[in-house]
Amino acid sequence: MTWEDVAAERQQHRAKTIAEVQPAVPGVPSELPLNVTAIPRQLLPAEVVTITEQTTEDLVLALANGRLSALAVTQAFLQRAGLACKLTNCITELMPRRALDRAQYLDQYYKDHQKPIGPLHGVPISVKEHIGMKDLDWNAGFVSWVGKTAPKDAFILQLLWNSGAVFYARTTQPQTLMHLETSNNLYGVTVNPFNRSLTCGGSSGGEGALGGMRGSCLGIGTDIGGSIRSPAANQGLFGLRPTSYRLPCGGFAATMLGEEQIVPVVGPISTSLGGIKLFMKSLIDQQPWLHEAALLPFPWKETSSSGTLLRQGQDGRRKLRVGVLTDDGIVKPHPPVLRGLKTLVDKLKVHPDVELVDFPPLRHEHAWSIISSLYFADGGSEEREAIDASGEPWRPLSKFILIDNPNVKKLSVPEVWKWTVEREAYRDAYAAHWNSTASEDGHALDVVLCPVGPGCAPPIDCARYWSYTSQWNLLDYPSIVFPTGLSCQPELDPAETTYTPRNAHDKYNHELYKPETYVDAPISLQLVGRRYEDEKVIEALEMISELADMPEVGI
Amino acid sequence: MTWEDVAAERQQHRAKTIAEVQPAVPGVPSELPLNVTAIPRQLLPAEVVTITEQTTEDLVLALANGRLSALAVTQAFLQRAGLACKLTNCITELMPRRALDRAQYLDQYYKDHQKPIGPLHGVPISVKEHIGMKDLDWNAGFVSWVGKTAPKDAFILQLLWNSGAVFYARTTQPQTLMHLETSNNLYGVTVNPFNRSLTCGGSSGGEGALGGMRGSCLGIGTDIGGSIRSPAANQGLFGLRPTSYRLPCGGFAATMLGEEQIVPVVGPISTSLGGIKLFMKSLIDQQPWLHEAALLPFPWKETSSSGTLLRQGQDGRRKLRVGVLTDDGIVKPHPPVLRGLKTLVDKLKVHPDVELVDFPPLRHEHAWSIISSLYFADGGSEEREAIDASGEPWRPLSKFILIDNPNVKKLSVPEVWKWTVEREAYRDAYAAHWNSTASEDGHALDVVLCPVGPGCAPPIDCARYWSYTSQWNLLDYPSIVFPTGLSCQPELDPAETTYTPRNAHDKYNHELYKPETYVDAPISLQLVGRRYEDEKVIEALEMISELADMPEVGI
Repeated sequence: MTWEDVAAERQQHRAKTIAEVQPAVPGVPSELPLNVTAIPRQLLPAEVVTITEQTTEDLVLALANGRLSALAVTQAFLQRAGLACKLTNCITELMPRRALDRAQYLDQYYKDHQKPIGPLHGVPISVKEHIGMKDLDWNAGFVSWVGKTAPKDAFILQLLWNSGAVFYARTTQPQTLMHLETSNNLYGVTVNPFNRSLTCGGSSGGEGALGGMRGSCLGIGTDIGGSIRSPAANQGLFGLRPTSYRLPCGGFAATMLGEEQIVPVVGPISTSLGGIKLFMKSLIDQQPWLHEAALLPFPWKETSSSGTLLRQGQDGRRKLRVGVLTDDGIVKPHPPVLRGLKTLVDKLKVHPDVELVDFPPLRHEHAWSIISSLYFADGGSEEREAIDASGEPWRPLSKFILIDNPNVKKLSVPEVWKWTVEREAYRDAYAAHWNSTASEDGHALDVVLCPVGPGCAPPIDCARYWSYTSQWNLLDYPSIVFPTGLSCQPELDPAETTYTPRNAHDKYNHELYKPETYVDAPISLQLVGRRYEDEKVIEALEMISELADMPEVGI
Repeated sequence: MTWEDVAAERQQHRAKTIAEVQPAVPGVPSELPLNVTAIPRQLLPAEVVTITEQTTEDLVLALANGRLSALAVTQAFLQRAGLACKLTNCITELMPRRALDRAQYLDQYYKDHQKPIGPLHGVPISVKEHIGMKDLDWNAGFVSWVGKTAPKDAFILQLLWNSGAVFYARTTQPQTLMHLETSNNLYGVTVNPFNRSLTCGGSSGGEGALGGMRGSCLGIGTDIGGSIRSPAANQGLFGLRPTSYRLPCGGFAATMLGEEQIVPVVGPISTSLGGIKLFMKSLIDQQPWLHEAALLPFPWKETSSSGTLLRQGQDGRRKLRVGVLTDDGIVKPHPPVLRGLKTLVDKLKVHPDVELVDFPPLRHEHAWSIISSLYFADGGSEEREAIDASGEPWRPLSKFILIDNPNVKKLSVPEVWKWTVEREAYRDAYAAHWNSTASEDGHALDVVLCPVGPGCAPPIDCARYWSYTSQWNLLDYPSIVFPTGLSCQPELDPAETTYTPRNAHDKYNHELYKPETYVDAPISLQLVGRRYEDEKVIEALEMISELADMPEVGI
């Protein structure tokens, strides 16, 4: 079989699973607008629209009190996900049979016991394809890996299953999993539903596009350099990169298994912050560390917008201290990003419960040298072999990160140690940098507010600057992205005409910006906390959303 | 300079620092008995004996309420440490000037403020030499590294200093730091004070011998395969190998910096369990994770022999569940070890608050393959280079672990990844093994009781079986060793005459055992907990000591 045959077979399989959905997924016009997010409301029944546009936490309530059946919810999301795929190419397969069987089981359980089976009873969860599902394909975006199937469900799926989840859709991922976009030779390019000329982001880009279409309210992504946050931000969703070793990563298809210098993490993408919290709490409450030995036994701390964690022991009067990092000193963010940041900062700076502090970057270019030297310590051999085995072409961004990247070298073991020492020295220096923000009463910053990238969702194959997200992977700081409720508007976001770029990266990014290119792209921001302070980051975002009267839902 | 010149210079330096102690360290007879532990009481003033034979926690009290001055305590320990060195060769240098200056400062502080400066006010702490001290030698047991000095105090020393500690003695370590004994070409062999024909253990063997002589009540060791526990056990002391990333490891001289597959840890060796607790709590209460980024932000949980942690939420009635692992299935422990274990088990099994459960080993030979493959992933090049650079000879146990060890190979980065995957698979399997001990009410074992080694302190150069300790390094389980109050007695511990060894390791160990060889060697045992449950291990040992009426102090 040629690689084209393999791809054709995978696409036929996908089409077949979409065709199985009942009621049938509507067809779409051959001519599509750039922004396709309004189409589902035109083509789908009102009930389907209503169900799929609820927040995860509202769905949980409706399912728990019997107002909605798991079957109705599952059918609605299957239909909308099928439509989302026709519009953005975000799915690798739907699983209508498995999902409906599961939904019926849950409905029966509810009928028999008059209570939900767990905290996610009946909630449909979409899953990035490399997260293994028993007997289903497990290819990580490589044509040559097609046909490998997972021996069992990944541990995280087992836990979500225990909580009552319904798995119904698997989502696209790029070749190598190492793009901040989503393009491979099996399905082609996944596009951004707000503007189909832009990328959905990646590597969890199928999740991003599906969430942006409201074909998913809660999905699972993975992140080693921005792969949860880029797609969440590009579609105006919430996406959390937790600190490493809080959520289980067993059972994923990927190259470089056993690599620990830069740890990949799994995390949620959701249309609401409530969905993020439900996901984290449901998993961690099951004490996964008793089974996956790499995990840390930190219980999940409850959060609330009244700031119980932040203010604990502070008799309720300490201000939320927010650092603002506007620019990493290497690549200046595009005008819409700066507008989004300024809008939020302007609201916060007049609020009596918030103290804003300028937080300067600390050698972020050095951070990129370290992380990009450690990403492919075998010189990328596994990726090369996996791509070349089928004869499939190299996608442009695989070439960008593996071939054109001067930091990719085949390292010896002592060279890896040397870079690891550099990494720890940098982490210690950053800890000191953060400590240096302490106020007179001894409180350092709670969180740092910053861009998610040097622009909003870029045009296809142009996501070539990772540092606004990979910075926090290197430091292993929890970071969440969230919608500002704003989107790119040419009239509000003119290009800077007199700017002199600082370097080649900055020049590339500067020249990428043309206001009309980005029309309708959501403007998102990122909130970062110290290592292991995942709950604090969420709580701070709850407070900020409330104080700044920000939209709870991203659409 | 030849390596012999370097060694002579180091020994002269040591002699000079011992000679500086006032009142003078007594001379010792040229003919010494095998057991030299009684000599200090014969040669030192009664007050010195009284001070140095207190537990750490009693010393802390006496210093905190002003009954003892820091100066008197420091002088007493300097004297006894100098004597200990003359009898066992356990010191690389004393620091009388630094220590007495510090003690005087603390006494002045106490006088001015009428309170101690911190929880370790005036407590003398001995330090394994590779833990850096500003401007002092930092050689890790290699002749070629002599002359390197630490640019500043290791972070752990800074924290102990904040707590009020007095540093007065630096202790011996073996060539490469990778022996379970202590022998190098700078100072020769450090011997066991209970029986000078036996090893003090290692690699923190200077700490072990010094503690055994009561020349230290609290010292710092490091452990990657048993290096805290072997010397603590060989001298009947308490020694804790904490879970990784709980205590700071920055500023140590060692090969393979940046190696993370098997993480070395630092931990306390003390004459009392109270000393272990004080050490852990004083450090962790300072939130070292805010500065050394690798550390985990677990606060220290208070423990007590009434079992507050173990029984939390169990309304005080749950039994302590102790697994008993008598034999790892590879090398059968010597008769004294089995007698020590049986004595304790017999006491515990009739106690209504304890439930004993047989805990079988799970493929411990596979664990050794993994850990010994990962110890020297560069094939031992750094150690070879560091030894060969000076022309010093290879000590027998350096040769044993680096040259004769079939698992030492120069690995590629992908080979390290492969072994890391094996390690995690084994850790997961062991977690399942531990979970499988759950009782009907859902409680798995709290702790496992087992030997520390296949025998008590072996004759010099015979410590060649690491698995009873390295097993828990591989799993990263906290493990503490403790004295049973018993020691080897030929009449109670006859050799087994009809035993057929299972394999070459077992044969070597079996043939090593001759009852008269081990006379007076302390019999110690090990208590192991699940990863990160350091406090629980301590609490369980407090309960066990109380229930079994075991000696609190090891001498």
